[in-house]
Amino acid sequence: MAKQQKDNQFVKEIADMTADFPQWYTDVVLKTQLVDYGPVKGTMVIRPYGYEIWEHIQEELDRRFKATGHKNAYFPMLIPYSYLVKEADHVEGFAPEVALVTHIGDTPLDEKLVVRPTSETIICSMFAKWVQSYRDLPVLVNQWANVVRWEKTTRPFLRTSEFLWQEGHTLHRTEEEAREETMRMLEVYREFMQNVLAIDVLTGVKTEKEKFAGAVATYSMEAMMLDGKSLQAGTSHYLGQNFANAFEIKYLDSDGALKNPYQTSWGVSTRLIGALIMAHGDQRGLKLPPRVAPVQVVIVPIAYHKEGVLEKASEVAAALKNAGVRVELDDRDQSPGWKFNEWEMKGVPVRIEIGPRDIENGQAVAVRRDTHEKSILSLDGLCEEIPALLDEIHENMFKQSHEFLHSRIDVCADMNEMKVALDKGHFVKTMWCGCRECEDKIKAELSATSRVLPFDQTPIGDKCVCCGKPASKVLYFAKSY
Amino acid sequence: MAKQQKDNQFVKEIADMTADFPQWYTDVVLKTQLVDYGPVKGTMVIRPYGYEIWEHIQEELDRRFKATGHKNAYFPMLIPYSYLVKEADHVEGFAPEVALVTHIGDTPLDEKLVVRPTSETIICSMFAKWVQSYRDLPVLVNQWANVVRWEKTTRPFLRTSEFLWQEGHTLHRTEEEAREETMRMLEVYREFMQNVLAIDVLTGVKTEKEKFAGAVATYSMEAMMLDGKSLQAGTSHYLGQNFANAFEIKYLDSDGALKNPYQTSWGVSTRLIGALIMAHGDQRGLKLPPRVAPVQVVIVPIAYHKEGVLEKASEVAAALKNAGVRVELDDRDQSPGWKFNEWEMKGVPVRIEIGPRDIENGQAVAVRRDTHEKSILSLDGLCEEIPALLDEIHENMFKQSHEFLHSRIDVCADMNEMKVALDKGHFVKTMWCGCRECEDKIKAELSATSRVLPFDQTPIGDKCVCCGKPASKVLYFAKSY
Repeated sequence: MAKQQKDNQFVKEIADMTADFPQWYTDVVLKTQLVDYGPVKGTMVIRPYGYEIWEHIQEELDRRFKATGHKNAYFPMLIPYSYLVKEADHVEGFAPEVALVTHIGDTPLDEKLVVRPTSETIICSMFAKWVQSYRDLPVLVNQWANVVRWEKTTRPFLRTSEFLWQEGHTLHRTEEEAREETMRMLEVYREFMQNVLAIDVLTGVKTEKEKFAGAVATYSMEAMMLDGKSLQAGTSHYLGQNFANAFEIKYLDSDGALKNPYQTSWGVSTRLIGALIMAHGDQRGLKLPPRVAPVQVVIVPIAYHKEGVLEKASEVAAALKNAGVRVELDDRDQSPGWKFNEWEMKGVPVRIEIGPRDIENGQAVAVRRDTHEKSILSLDGLCEEIPALLDEIHENMFKQSHEFLHSRIDVCADMNEMKVALDKGHFVKTMWCGCRECEDKIKAELSATSRVLPFDQTPIGDKCVCCGKPASKVLYFAKSY
Repeated sequence: MAKQQKDNQFVKEIADMTADFPQWYTDVVLKTQLVDYGPVKGTMVIRPYGYEIWEHIQEELDRRFKATGHKNAYFPMLIPYSYLVKEADHVEGFAPEVALVTHIGDTPLDEKLVVRPTSETIICSMFAKWVQSYRDLPVLVNQWANVVRWEKTTRPFLRTSEFLWQEGHTLHRTEEEAREETMRMLEVYREFMQNVLAIDVLTGVKTEKEKFAGAVATYSMEAMMLDGKSLQAGTSHYLGQNFANAFEIKYLDSDGALKNPYQTSWGVSTRLIGALIMAHGDQRGLKLPPRVAPVQVVIVPIAYHKEGVLEKASEVAAALKNAGVRVELDDRDQSPGWKFNEWEMKGVPVRIEIGPRDIENGQAVAVRRDTHEKSILSLDGLCEEIPALLDEIHENMFKQSHEFLHSRIDVCADMNEMKVALDKGHFVKTMWCGCRECEDKIKAELSATSRVLPFDQTPIGDKCVCCGKPASKVLYFAKSY
């Protein structure tokens, strides 16, 4: 009974995820100290436990970007307002939500400056200066930076006035090469989601309505959150020559002609932290994918005042650390039950318990966060067993994410079916005529938006789910973040 | 003669460093593509070759910060104006140069927002929320971020409207602990300058006039540039309880009393890239310290159209890469002489030349950037020899920096001696009465500023260099960046 009460202590502080998912999310991100609210509306403070997740996301992605030939650079955050307006769709999309710097101290500026909401415009102005010949192509750069987009409704990690992200920007000699790059980076993202965050995604192209302001085509990956909503987790844009035209980026081709290069951009952000919380969490709190967990293994000594226990626990911690495991020894003056629950809430993938009897037997107890399964491991073998266990947890979490997603996609033929599916928190796979009006109507009536046109366009019907007219496009709809 | 001309091609494009050092600097940073000017006054674009230096600086420092117990976090960039004014000295120091966000799109904000020039104010507002008990102390956080300070005269890396930096912020239970932290981080910086950037520095405390706006005491490290000017390369501030008071950070101590904690902050920035350029460069261009060089070794194949040359060069490159060396194989269609000069300009520490005859003899030629010394290395031993050679180059570069600095410090007893020393591009070590008026007078008459009061305060005289009154403080003066 005492055990039961302790078990419930942390859980009780977290709203019921089935009854109030948004409140569950807020409780979890605040109580686990991932994040806090900043003083300015819609801003967030990323606390050390949250920021370390971001650091691991960065390491993993940065390695992949470099392996595909990209180099990092840094472009100024403050952009002349006149740049923003050069690409017509771009300014329409971003102008209402940009933060404007108008003064330095008491002195007004001659031209107001935009705090970057994204960097296409300033980067293109530099590309125009740097690129002269086909020999200068391709240009493959990436930037890790903060951006500001003023949002009406905000939520930590998911939608904040300022967020951290990476934005890749590339220039190519041919359309084909640029389209290949767009797809390559979408695949880099998808593979990262699977192999690092353990989240399955749907990929495909956005409709005209949902594409990036200034792009020819936007490719996206969509992840299903535990409440059945879709989260756009990353995008890769084929920009064609839109920005190259607007910013007069020209190169002398080998045939002696001046041409505009073809362009891409692609990005993911701190929103990914929101994604992994809502894709994996449970009523006890976070369930962190092992490859980005700040603490992969926590060691809780049992009866740690007894001789030799803390010594042995420290020894194990040092050995695991040496084997490349991110390990923490919890030697605080609290009961083991309290510690178990706190670390469960914080989503640590594996807990190791070591007590006097375990030491006698040369063993330890390992408890998985994903399945709550206990196993007895030999102390001698821990440095091989634990990394393998972390991989197993990763695979299991991905499998769950995969099954969750694919068991909740309903094929719908009309609006009624669609409503039923959406109310259950499912995604809808359906046929669409291709017109904007139907998308608008679905949004108005069912609060769902189109997510992606999947690459596999094998028809699943021949009439539009909305207007009933002939339809040839397969499209996913869902409620979304 | 043809060789001579090629040798001179790049050098001729760079201004004479003895005749016009500022122009030499500008030529070097632009031609080596470290940096470019941004469209907004005083901003810079850090290009891939420059950014990679910053990445290595970040890796090295971040490791040291974590080893001393700090964790990274991220605080919002936009700060309510009312926060800036809470600490009186702080607002006086920063208000004239802050960028202000006043509008979102067309809509004016209720309260104008400051783009952070530094983050003490916003971080303290969060600390006030997070810290309740002595058990919450110490708080040891660091942030990697961009900051904006509008400057009248700007120079890439040295002084720009926006720059990248890290800012550590810590809270402690006692003054003693906070003062220890201030010194610990100054020493982390000094050790980093020596062992990573190969630059010797003077350390000590700033005068009241030169200290950080809001600090009790500012400790600094000062590096001597090749033109004899001093560059403040990093600072560590003991903030006492100034900000804790202003932001009402209070903790319940074990004695039951509410107390203000003691605070520190410390930072270095992309200015360090400027420091390493001006501490090590020469007439041929950059001379990069090996531990932050994006390319540590460049392999230039000789007669590379001959059979087997490129293959062998690729093999060597792969082996070195495998041994952890940052290596680039230059297989472009250009003459070896042209390549030699370009990579010299770009400051690559070691060049390896491999031609058909070398391959026959199982050897390669290695040329050091620092001494231009050539040596013949066995191909079999390269993976041991090259890392050792890079270390040797590092040691030699530090030795040169050390000797340069210490051979150019003149002890001066009066203003005339001081003028002579400063005109030679030397630092001045002298006695100072401690009054602000003398500092101001020296600045007005000799364009020199006080740099640091060294920790070793063994008197070298008894009269103030300026007013001639009794003086007990040893102080360095120099012209500075």
